[in-house]
Amino acid sequence: MKVLVINAGSSSLKYQLYNMMDESVLASGRVERIGMDSSIVTHEPADKPEVKNVSEILEHTTAVRRVLDLLTDAKHGVISSINEIHAVGHRVVHGGETFKQSALVTNDVKVEIRKLFDLAPLHNPAHMMGILAVEENMPDIPQVVVFDTAFHQTMPQQSYLYAIPMVLYRRHKVRRYGFHGTSHAYVSDQAAKFLNKPLESLSMVSCHIGNGASCTAIKDGKSFDTSMGMTPLEGLMMGTRSGDLDPAVVPYVMNKEDLSVSEVNSMLNKHSGLQAISGLSSDMREITDAMNEGDKNAKLAFDMYTYRIRKYVGAYAAAMNGLDTIIFTAGVGENSVVLRKAVCEGLTFLGVELDEERNSERSKVTRRISTDSSRITVLVVPTNEELLIARDTYAIIRESSDYN
Amino acid sequence: MKVLVINAGSSSLKYQLYNMMDESVLASGRVERIGMDSSIVTHEPADKPEVKNVSEILEHTTAVRRVLDLLTDAKHGVISSINEIHAVGHRVVHGGETFKQSALVTNDVKVEIRKLFDLAPLHNPAHMMGILAVEENMPDIPQVVVFDTAFHQTMPQQSYLYAIPMVLYRRHKVRRYGFHGTSHAYVSDQAAKFLNKPLESLSMVSCHIGNGASCTAIKDGKSFDTSMGMTPLEGLMMGTRSGDLDPAVVPYVMNKEDLSVSEVNSMLNKHSGLQAISGLSSDMREITDAMNEGDKNAKLAFDMYTYRIRKYVGAYAAAMNGLDTIIFTAGVGENSVVLRKAVCEGLTFLGVELDEERNSERSKVTRRISTDSSRITVLVVPTNEELLIARDTYAIIRESSDYN
Repeated sequence: MKVLVINAGSSSLKYQLYNMMDESVLASGRVERIGMDSSIVTHEPADKPEVKNVSEILEHTTAVRRVLDLLTDAKHGVISSINEIHAVGHRVVHGGETFKQSALVTNDVKVEIRKLFDLAPLHNPAHMMGILAVEENMPDIPQVVVFDTAFHQTMPQQSYLYAIPMVLYRRHKVRRYGFHGTSHAYVSDQAAKFLNKPLESLSMVSCHIGNGASCTAIKDGKSFDTSMGMTPLEGLMMGTRSGDLDPAVVPYVMNKEDLSVSEVNSMLNKHSGLQAISGLSSDMREITDAMNEGDKNAKLAFDMYTYRIRKYVGAYAAAMNGLDTIIFTAGVGENSVVLRKAVCEGLTFLGVELDEERNSERSKVTRRISTDSSRITVLVVPTNEELLIARDTYAIIRESSDYN
Repeated sequence: MKVLVINAGSSSLKYQLYNMMDESVLASGRVERIGMDSSIVTHEPADKPEVKNVSEILEHTTAVRRVLDLLTDAKHGVISSINEIHAVGHRVVHGGETFKQSALVTNDVKVEIRKLFDLAPLHNPAHMMGILAVEENMPDIPQVVVFDTAFHQTMPQQSYLYAIPMVLYRRHKVRRYGFHGTSHAYVSDQAAKFLNKPLESLSMVSCHIGNGASCTAIKDGKSFDTSMGMTPLEGLMMGTRSGDLDPAVVPYVMNKEDLSVSEVNSMLNKHSGLQAISGLSSDMREITDAMNEGDKNAKLAFDMYTYRIRKYVGAYAAAMNGLDTIIFTAGVGENSVVLRKAVCEGLTFLGVELDEERNSERSKVTRRISTDSSRITVLVVPTNEELLIARDTYAIIRESSDYN
């Protein structure tokens, strides 16, 4: 049983082929610059050398064909025929209130995903192109959609409603959805296994700190609150996103700088965050390096960034009236020793006791970085959204009648 | 030494006359509906019956004259001549970064306040009308301005900067200022006196919960962070204000509902909050009553409102890496037994132990509502912004050369 996982963006397509028997990755890769004359395909088979080539790939259908060609290629391939692929799982950013879990792609499901284009105009249309491209290339293969928002559909009303006229919720579905759900679900599950405790018994704050970043309060194994909102803009400071902001700043700045709706969106999503404060980079590694060399703006960016993570951990501890586990995950969360240190050093009042040596160890596995006597357990859990998409796809395909 | 305190709005003017020898209020009152043909003046001398009359008051100068007439009136007055008034203190909402403390009104100060009109277009111009009206009526009396923002000028950069392009801070002064500063300053000082501890030794979160609402983290006796932002819209859910919101919701809603900048501002400031969620009222007393009668929307509004206060207390505990005192103040904070209960019941993990009996007592004085063994002390402290304005005015007048 092999599952192909696809993450389609508007001009890119990432993929992994999983063997679900042992959850191994047979091959992975990406197609970049779709729609341009010099599209780049990078294919990485598990046991063979990487292949990279540049050619014209004008649309997603061609991109998928190229991927299938590479996967079955005599020299670079890892399977002998596309019939070996039993299912395709897609990452979909926005599932709105419609999708509370992953779903088999049907016509109805496609209609519903289209209805959500408005809420995620940059992402959902691209995912749909990915789904249609697979359909054209492999019409008989079942597809599954796995949503970034689905895990957060358990949030109570007090967490997800904004205090604005209810007509905006009813008419335009304005509410908190939250994102990175696949990651928060995966790492909380991994944490419970690592601690050998029932997931339902833990009160956790999971900090997914990558280029995008969000904190989630997880109680009884479910998302109770999360820092991203209707869109991924709200919450923590990110690489290029502002995170929390006085909402009145938006119309004020639009007025002062004569910005349109799309210009202000672009400013807040693409030109804010670490990039704006440091004036240097949206990449935490570069920020940290510059900070160590005495750059004051980099230090300020780092301080703001970590301060806001601390505040969210505190807020969610209060939201759940208690906390026993903090998880760091994603690019920055898994790799930045100084970031984890800065966050944890400000949380000793909660009973967080960081073990500096454990925190400094480089490793790719789930590990504890708090001391054994720390009242709150702090873990680093490598996230793996693709694996969770593969697992969900596999589970749904097995459940669906064709495989009974 | 008598000080007249004035809070001028665009169509209203409130006043209190203080005798600074014993800080007693000799008279207070308000002029409402300035600019209309049926303006209402309500005058309340301390030891005489209230007077109320309706007449045409077209501008603030006339309003101030009417107030002075009443204060010196043979029948309703409390002083024999306006010469008994030694100084006038004004509440001013926005002091920007210019005013880190209260100031004697000079031409320069007036110029600076005008420069801040942009940041507080609804408030500062009205305060200026109040200052000019006093000047016309009592040209030789010194005036002092006391700012809602001044107390928060001690916040560190990581608290007050937004993660947006720095040019917006430099060019348009976009940053967190915070409001209710006079109240947060007053109640934190009162709390320290009540606890008989140095203010600097306490880590406090002060919750000013009225129709407007804000939480402030107070460390070393200074504002360290606060929930209101560039404007009073950010932070807690309020009577008619949304509080925190995904900033991307603003352009989204403007687009969907074809709203102008001023319409979206009006929606978020005047038609959101408790009012929007309950569909009933912006007044916590009415919300609580309806909730007790089983109204589900009122219950939801109450739950959202208290949940957000809890989250801010948790966030600020983390901001300061610890917390020893929580203060409730202002209309709702001082009077709503159920609100304080709902907030504190979710904070037992911090060591908050509410004494239900103490919490239920009706009283007008500073009091403890936590148990004696509670790890965190919870206080109700009646706020008195007018008194602090009078005190600041008195202090500045005494310092100024005329009184040396």
